[in-house]
Amino acid sequence: MQKIVSQLSVRLIFKQLKVATVESCTGGFIGKALTDQAGSSQWFAGGLITYTNESKTQLADVAPDLIEKYGAVSLEVADAMARGAQRHFPGCVSVAVTGVAGPDGGTPDKPVGTVCIATCLNGRVNAKKFLFEGNREQVRESTVDQALEMVLADIEKK
Amino acid sequence: MQKIVSQLSVRLIFKQLKVATVESCTGGFIGKALTDQAGSSQWFAGGLITYTNESKTQLADVAPDLIEKYGAVSLEVADAMARGAQRHFPGCVSVAVTGVAGPDGGTPDKPVGTVCIATCLNGRVNAKKFLFEGNREQVRESTVDQALEMVLADIEKK
Repeated sequence: MQKIVSQLSVRLIFKQLKVATVESCTGGFIGKALTDQAGSSQWFAGGLITYTNESKTQLADVAPDLIEKYGAVSLEVADAMARGAQRHFPGCVSVAVTGVAGPDGGTPDKPVGTVCIATCLNGRVNAKKFLFEGNREQVRESTVDQALEMVLADIEKK
Repeated sequence: MQKIVSQLSVRLIFKQLKVATVESCTGGFIGKALTDQAGSSQWFAGGLITYTNESKTQLADVAPDLIEKYGAVSLEVADAMARGAQRHFPGCVSVAVTGVAGPDGGTPDKPVGTVCIATCLNGRVNAKKFLFEGNREQVRESTVDQALEMVLADIEKK
């Protein structure tokens, strides 16, 4: 995790970009991982921890209808969260995650380990769905790693 | 850290309260620590990661004048951050932290390890200033522990 944070920081500085986070199942873990690195204020703007449906709506402007229709763990909601962050963090690359970290909350359709991640840069969204293996801690760690990989891939396209 | 999170979760459930975070120097670490525990959605509402001065103003309604007058690491700004969270998380106990985690950013007045923490519950704010020892990681860990201790103490007074 430290390695990808280090790689990402170098590329963000090079691209003169800052990253902003919108976290549901990771609850602040992405922000924590980014700011473990000294000097992160150069390339990390801040984030939203939208752990409840209400906070997804209140902070990240996710329409309640969208959550009702697709569920909080969906590509549609991850997409909306990443877009919603842009109001608070304009010009940043935003990354949003929503998933079922477990041990509870899984369903046949969305078992524990189901995670949707979206990035948004210059109005362009990239959203992907994953099924991570392992316990709560492992699912959350995999989510952070994958979210940072997606940011890294996205900014290289800029 | 796991022990205080566990204690706090029991008391929050008993008091029918949720906690919300506003994090500067910890960058999401408090939220991460809270949500390491399964079932945290029962008593954790969400949070704001206000790593820059702009995000303190944008997300937590901290007046730019206050930051200019007292500095981002001050009891006044921690107080304003904790109060500011109440707009997004009404009815919650909010906890805000702002500090110098290091290794850079220290000044003679506010050396590395200087951290201001404030809690807000029912409009009543409690703010304290600390000087934590150790490296960046240790300062951040001490900040999380102390912030959670302050929330625990505050909700017992309710």
